[in-house]
Amino acid sequence: MTTTLDFPLFAARAEGYRPSPVRDFWAVSMQPGVISLAGGNPDLSVLPLGELGDVAARLVATRGLDALQYGAGKGTDGARAAVVRVMDAEGIAVDPDSIQITAGSQMALELVVKLLCDPGDVVLAEGPSYVGAIGVFAGLEASVVHVPMDDGGLRPDALEATIAQVRSEGRRIKALYTIPNFHNPTGITLAADRRPEIVRICADAGIAIIEDNPYGLLAFDGVTLPSLHDLDPENVFYLGSFSKIVAPGLRVGWAAVPRSARRRLQLAAEATTICASVLSQMIIEEYVTRHDWLGVLDRARALYLARSQAVQDALVAHAPAGTQWSVPRGGFFTWLTLPEGASASHVLDAAIENRVVFVPGTAFFADGQGQGNLRVAFSLENEATLAEGVARLGAAIATA
Amino acid sequence: MTTTLDFPLFAARAEGYRPSPVRDFWAVSMQPGVISLAGGNPDLSVLPLGELGDVAARLVATRGLDALQYGAGKGTDGARAAVVRVMDAEGIAVDPDSIQITAGSQMALELVVKLLCDPGDVVLAEGPSYVGAIGVFAGLEASVVHVPMDDGGLRPDALEATIAQVRSEGRRIKALYTIPNFHNPTGITLAADRRPEIVRICADAGIAIIEDNPYGLLAFDGVTLPSLHDLDPENVFYLGSFSKIVAPGLRVGWAAVPRSARRRLQLAAEATTICASVLSQMIIEEYVTRHDWLGVLDRARALYLARSQAVQDALVAHAPAGTQWSVPRGGFFTWLTLPEGASASHVLDAAIENRVVFVPGTAFFADGQGQGNLRVAFSLENEATLAEGVARLGAAIATA
Repeated sequence: MTTTLDFPLFAARAEGYRPSPVRDFWAVSMQPGVISLAGGNPDLSVLPLGELGDVAARLVATRGLDALQYGAGKGTDGARAAVVRVMDAEGIAVDPDSIQITAGSQMALELVVKLLCDPGDVVLAEGPSYVGAIGVFAGLEASVVHVPMDDGGLRPDALEATIAQVRSEGRRIKALYTIPNFHNPTGITLAADRRPEIVRICADAGIAIIEDNPYGLLAFDGVTLPSLHDLDPENVFYLGSFSKIVAPGLRVGWAAVPRSARRRLQLAAEATTICASVLSQMIIEEYVTRHDWLGVLDRARALYLARSQAVQDALVAHAPAGTQWSVPRGGFFTWLTLPEGASASHVLDAAIENRVVFVPGTAFFADGQGQGNLRVAFSLENEATLAEGVARLGAAIATA
Repeated sequence: MTTTLDFPLFAARAEGYRPSPVRDFWAVSMQPGVISLAGGNPDLSVLPLGELGDVAARLVATRGLDALQYGAGKGTDGARAAVVRVMDAEGIAVDPDSIQITAGSQMALELVVKLLCDPGDVVLAEGPSYVGAIGVFAGLEASVVHVPMDDGGLRPDALEATIAQVRSEGRRIKALYTIPNFHNPTGITLAADRRPEIVRICADAGIAIIEDNPYGLLAFDGVTLPSLHDLDPENVFYLGSFSKIVAPGLRVGWAAVPRSARRRLQLAAEATTICASVLSQMIIEEYVTRHDWLGVLDRARALYLARSQAVQDALVAHAPAGTQWSVPRGGFFTWLTLPEGASASHVLDAAIENRVVFVPGTAFFADGQGQGNLRVAFSLENEATLAEGVARLGAAIATA
């Protein structure tokens, strides 16, 4: 082991940029024969690659002087129209003027947190929560306080209690960060009747909501629930992504934000990347406007449903007694609760011996919780591989 | 005029994201008949658009599962190899491990400042300096103190005096931000003999250097000078860009940084955008590896030289007595100093009446300097248009 000393002039926030445990398994998961239940990459095999290649070629050859030039800081009109179309497909009404295109949804989150949080400010988040969001909060020196979930998602009673508790400690809460649909890492969806309640609690408490919705169109049954954004557009910072419904390698996402936040958000976006890739924005515009993207999405949903089902079946067959897991209705993930007293880090050691990897639960908490949990991602492997991976995982749980 | 109220929960730093004066002229400059000497976009007409389109199509069709997927946080190996090749063309040796790919060079700057500067920390910068950098410093609550330049660029004596002065005020200096080659906005190049001196002054003072070099390969005569990075790679954060030598719309840039900064830089980059567009990185890799990018660059340099010359000739013909201007040896810009007592904002009013626009000097200072200066960009208009634009500008100066 070598110790890496940091550059001596670093700011305090540099300390917050810490390695994510997801990264640590990358090397292991790349070894031949190892089954990865770790990464949450979408399966791109459903995409019409030939068509998309033709789109890219035509854009560069015939509109290259625009596609390869700097673009508008807010995003191209075409990309913003594509966002309206995609949100409409999920039943979400959005003011086109509210949309800020970013170089991926991660950047949208980073910008919103940059605008909202001074060092020490508190962000509430489901416990567990998206590991990449925890990284953003840490880097910008915001403190995460987790709010417990159950099978219906974030618990409104727990939200109210947490707000009261944090405030009684004299700490300032700026936002609730939440992934209402097919939550990462649990796969759980926020119950419809909780949505207006959570929106009301935050509005009453003077806390903004950051609604992160990358998976909303990935319901196995195609059913969508009301977005928090629609319930209170002037207090919700909505984050959207083309990564799970088109392609992450293009790096195009967006935020749809309250009127009073748009100007600063655009300026912050310009200060960060000037604009998102114009070529990427144009490819997405063309794909979402002139191609059967919803048909492709239907095939993707069917694929993910079959994979989720394979994981569920294998868990029933192979998980030792006392193991519990979530039953996702969409998205990429299932969340396991190990038998009483079992530790995911011990299970991981045994799993690596069995040539299977996953992300242990502690990665999804900012405060050390999650030692008895782990996440299984089913988005990228086929059903047979997933079944074998879960069998190996079950054996690892039994021996750990 | 309407007043825009900010979202009530904004952090202190939100205040720092202020409109750039360059944006304000965008609307005016888009009106028919208006000649823009304002924007610094590269001229992409030299690019082999058909070839680039074919490259994009082939990458998507045959390697789409990689090109459209998430990529490595540090950048693709191919893009990093392309950076080595491009830096080598400028005579700069670089450790491939030091290279962090970003979604444009602006993002590389933002990340480096994020890592280096706590609120209130001082960044030294040439006076004038790049307006987009001033925006980054403001957003991250760093204070800019300008160091005077002359025809040889940043003055080492002024740098030493400024360091002493700032420190005597009890303020902490973290970095010198400098654009040594064909500086934006002045077009001036840092004299060769000043380079080791500036590197030494900063090293002795314990101040990092941020070397921003988007234009280094755009010398009209092809001559390159030693980079600050090569002189002190463990204290220089080098920022590079494909925007001026390939295409800005792909949004790929990079930083080459000291060993002790690489780990946090990668983590900060991942927290900000996960990765840069993989498709964009692959297009650049292909273009720089298998195409005559240096031949294209030669044509671009010839184009910019002719345009710069047209501006110089027109200034000789039309600038009122007492007007002074820089004579760039590369890049996109000439910097004007108006006759004693003249104000660039008054000149701009007259110029807009004459249907020509430019960016007034105050945009390039964080402290209100530059009222008697303005920037002329010659990168995007042809020679006849530039000559006419400068004639109109000369008339505006005469009447203002």
